[in-house]
Amino acid sequence: MAQFINFKDMLVTDAITGTLRASGGRLARLDGFPHIKVVLRADWDRSRVALVSGGGSGHEPAHAGFVGAGMLTAAVCGDVFASPSVDAVLAGILAVTGKAGCLLIVKNYTGDRLNFGLAAERARTFGLKVAMVVVDDDVALPDLPQARGVAGTLLVHKTAGALAESGADLDRVTAMAQRVIRGVKSIGMSLDTCTVPGSPKEDRIAPGKAELGLGIHGEAGVEQVDYATAKDAMVRVVARLRPHLGTGRHVALLNNLGGTTALEMAVLAEELALSMIGPSIAAIVGPGPMMTSLDMHGFSVSVLPLDAEVEMALAAPVALAAWPGMQDFGPVTVLPLPDGLSPVEPIASSHAGHRALLVQCCDILTGAETALNALDAKSGDGDTGTTLATAARALKGALHRMPLADLTQLYRAIGGELSQTMGGSSGVLLAIFFTAAGDAAASGRDLAGAMSAGLARVRQVGGASPGDRTMIDALHPALEALGQGVGSAAQAARKGADATAAMSKAKAGRAAYLSAASLSGHNDPGAEAVALLFEGLARR
Amino acid sequence: MAQFINFKDMLVTDAITGTLRASGGRLARLDGFPHIKVVLRADWDRSRVALVSGGGSGHEPAHAGFVGAGMLTAAVCGDVFASPSVDAVLAGILAVTGKAGCLLIVKNYTGDRLNFGLAAERARTFGLKVAMVVVDDDVALPDLPQARGVAGTLLVHKTAGALAESGADLDRVTAMAQRVIRGVKSIGMSLDTCTVPGSPKEDRIAPGKAELGLGIHGEAGVEQVDYATAKDAMVRVVARLRPHLGTGRHVALLNNLGGTTALEMAVLAEELALSMIGPSIAAIVGPGPMMTSLDMHGFSVSVLPLDAEVEMALAAPVALAAWPGMQDFGPVTVLPLPDGLSPVEPIASSHAGHRALLVQCCDILTGAETALNALDAKSGDGDTGTTLATAARALKGALHRMPLADLTQLYRAIGGELSQTMGGSSGVLLAIFFTAAGDAAASGRDLAGAMSAGLARVRQVGGASPGDRTMIDALHPALEALGQGVGSAAQAARKGADATAAMSKAKAGRAAYLSAASLSGHNDPGAEAVALLFEGLARR
Repeated sequence: MAQFINFKDMLVTDAITGTLRASGGRLARLDGFPHIKVVLRADWDRSRVALVSGGGSGHEPAHAGFVGAGMLTAAVCGDVFASPSVDAVLAGILAVTGKAGCLLIVKNYTGDRLNFGLAAERARTFGLKVAMVVVDDDVALPDLPQARGVAGTLLVHKTAGALAESGADLDRVTAMAQRVIRGVKSIGMSLDTCTVPGSPKEDRIAPGKAELGLGIHGEAGVEQVDYATAKDAMVRVVARLRPHLGTGRHVALLNNLGGTTALEMAVLAEELALSMIGPSIAAIVGPGPMMTSLDMHGFSVSVLPLDAEVEMALAAPVALAAWPGMQDFGPVTVLPLPDGLSPVEPIASSHAGHRALLVQCCDILTGAETALNALDAKSGDGDTGTTLATAARALKGALHRMPLADLTQLYRAIGGELSQTMGGSSGVLLAIFFTAAGDAAASGRDLAGAMSAGLARVRQVGGASPGDRTMIDALHPALEALGQGVGSAAQAARKGADATAAMSKAKAGRAAYLSAASLSGHNDPGAEAVALLFEGLARR
Repeated sequence: MAQFINFKDMLVTDAITGTLRASGGRLARLDGFPHIKVVLRADWDRSRVALVSGGGSGHEPAHAGFVGAGMLTAAVCGDVFASPSVDAVLAGILAVTGKAGCLLIVKNYTGDRLNFGLAAERARTFGLKVAMVVVDDDVALPDLPQARGVAGTLLVHKTAGALAESGADLDRVTAMAQRVIRGVKSIGMSLDTCTVPGSPKEDRIAPGKAELGLGIHGEAGVEQVDYATAKDAMVRVVARLRPHLGTGRHVALLNNLGGTTALEMAVLAEELALSMIGPSIAAIVGPGPMMTSLDMHGFSVSVLPLDAEVEMALAAPVALAAWPGMQDFGPVTVLPLPDGLSPVEPIASSHAGHRALLVQCCDILTGAETALNALDAKSGDGDTGTTLATAARALKGALHRMPLADLTQLYRAIGGELSQTMGGSSGVLLAIFFTAAGDAAASGRDLAGAMSAGLARVRQVGGASPGDRTMIDALHPALEALGQGVGSAAQAARKGADATAAMSKAKAGRAAYLSAASLSGHNDPGAEAVALLFEGLARR
């Protein structure tokens, strides 16, 4: 399966360089590529306790994305799913540790424990104060004493980071990290495995199944379970977490394992709220990708009891795009719909002149049904005439309830009628035309001015201009000429409509999808309808 | 393909509710589910120009994720890839528009133009000031006058949003939006299509191919091109953007179309920097998912010329997790490796007693090679004896260059030798043991104390305790008894080692992966080695 990488061996170093370039100078790296891959704060002055984490790559934004004031001081990156070397970790420690000391935050995998552990020993021989904590938040295997470290690690980074940033000493920072590690529990679920660069994708999970209790390195889940809906998924995950929850308030970290869409993650957030533990979740971090497993189509939930100190540390703002912040979780504010969605029915009124004009327009369009259908059949589906005639008949039948005496209201009412009877884009465009004309009439513009305002709005919304082979090619010149009388307008409309026969490429509307050959030599049916309408009115 | 959703018809409403729950009360929605799906700022007071955007769902975090102070006032959401209705848009406009008016920011798709356009007309009939801009940043089809609106829309949201937040009037906000629309150009590339909920996935892109110039609704790209590396991909994308770039500074928005890993996106950021237009890109937004197409494995690049006003608007901070912020783009800071990675070779010194003890230890372990291999063969790969004997022979051969007279240095030197000759977890653990012992000796602790300090560190790093069927089961009691002499230590070690035969479940180390049946009835080889060592020393 293709990926946006160059060569597998350069994947992580390329990605680190790209991350540094996009960091605006906030991040730096140590020399020593490709063996030593350490990302660190460019502004670090060693005045406070340093926090170093890391491990195999493939969990982005963890860990380099969390390097910054208030979280990590440095991230030591291995290759994809491979622990960094002792030398790399040692380089990271030596680069950031001052008199205040350094805390290593390590996920519970043998390689990481050993390499970070030995690096800590070596660093101590330099007289540096180095503490180390091991995160083991995964509750997938209830009886395994060596639980894995997964997304709960982020809560350790954030709480310890806030304390370190505030100037707390190494013992206090370490104690906070240990307290969070004791409290945090996580479990993940996935619908598919991840794609490890350079390796074939393992097709392990059958349709209708999901893996529960998986790690973040593509290792198989503890069990395969039936899967149908997001609700099922969250119910199963919550069932594993619930025995670990106390009675108080908790924070949940809802983590995207990489390949889940934001839409799905939001649905899962809703299912978490509706779940058995929903009432215990007072605050949420995410949903979002924080500790991923490359492109794994899955999620994890981590829960941690909240106390005042933990809550304050989690809530402390950090300027890191990867950290979504902690928010109160639960209530949904629904505001009432505004007034005005159901337009007030205008009061019917009489006006013989307006009525006669409208009847005439409707009759002209009804009479042109067959001719317009025939024209449309040459390039489209042959229904332009019927669409217009149907709308015209409906409009004629509605005249008795129209506000004929009030031009502003009349235009708007015509627009409303047409949008309901015509449907589709044409109906909406005519509704826009007449509504804008009504607004113009309300501002005192005459018929030609109102029509021109309508056309201007249709052009803006529809994006079509004269020359694009639409009804505008007839309507635009007709309205330009309307000041010289309807006869001039009719002549201009006819000239414009006939010119569309030579427009071999439609640039807007439905005909834009048709070939030049099927358009050339005959008029656009919409433009022809406009010409027929003005010609009919001119004969009145 | 399974997804974390419940029922297709409830997908967008579920997701909106989940988004609101996780917003900490920052967002609200209008009543009217499922037809009216409008997300808006809960704190909005209509005192400034309102910004309303939206369109079909499936592009998350666009648009609801960008609702907040400094960006959008409301997002009107349709179903997946479907425009919201006129009524929904109108509801959004009416809910947020005060005297300062409202700007609609619409992506150039017919449905959105028409529905937002008619809603704007209707809102104007209420006397509201409503302007509308249409974003058409896609340069995939050079000769199409109706270019699509894609990820460049975010730059319009951000710039217009910053102006509106600062109190600018509708004309100024609209002018800014129009200026950005004129300047912004985008193009996308994908290695795979997206998975539309409820529809089978279209398998359109062959291996070795990518689609260039695709939209954000799963529509086919303008062309299929050969694909091999991330560099290829960026070269092709940049070739389409380059003709549109002026001579000045630009900002690039590097957008994840949904299914691309963070690792790949960082590689693409690096390739953008190395590309022909790299020197023109002064600032970057991302990489990150901003305008997605569900889970599409692709990316897009948008470029926009920077001037002082645009730059200030883009740089203005907003408290939205979905907006990654704008950063300077380009330079990478590489810091020198710290001193101390190559440990200073200790100065060799003589000490007959220490030398004799070490020789004896080495000889004991060398002599036990066959017996330990045989024991290990019962439950493992039969190499414990050889591993230890090899290390012992190497250590014995290195004694002439060891700092025998300085216990602190000697412990550390032993650790260094063992980690190099043994390799793997055992080597690292013994290196940790002796390095920690050396530190303890430096603090004045005697042999037993130093050994105990080493053991404590190994337990912390390795995570094993007595009873876990490891060498600790012999070492721990031996060190506890060492105060009463080496004879007592040997007896305790033997007792501890023999007890491992009854431990049917290993809880740490390699044997944790073995079944009870293959372990029961014989001693753990590591514990046995410790017992043999102490017994040998007691016989001295």
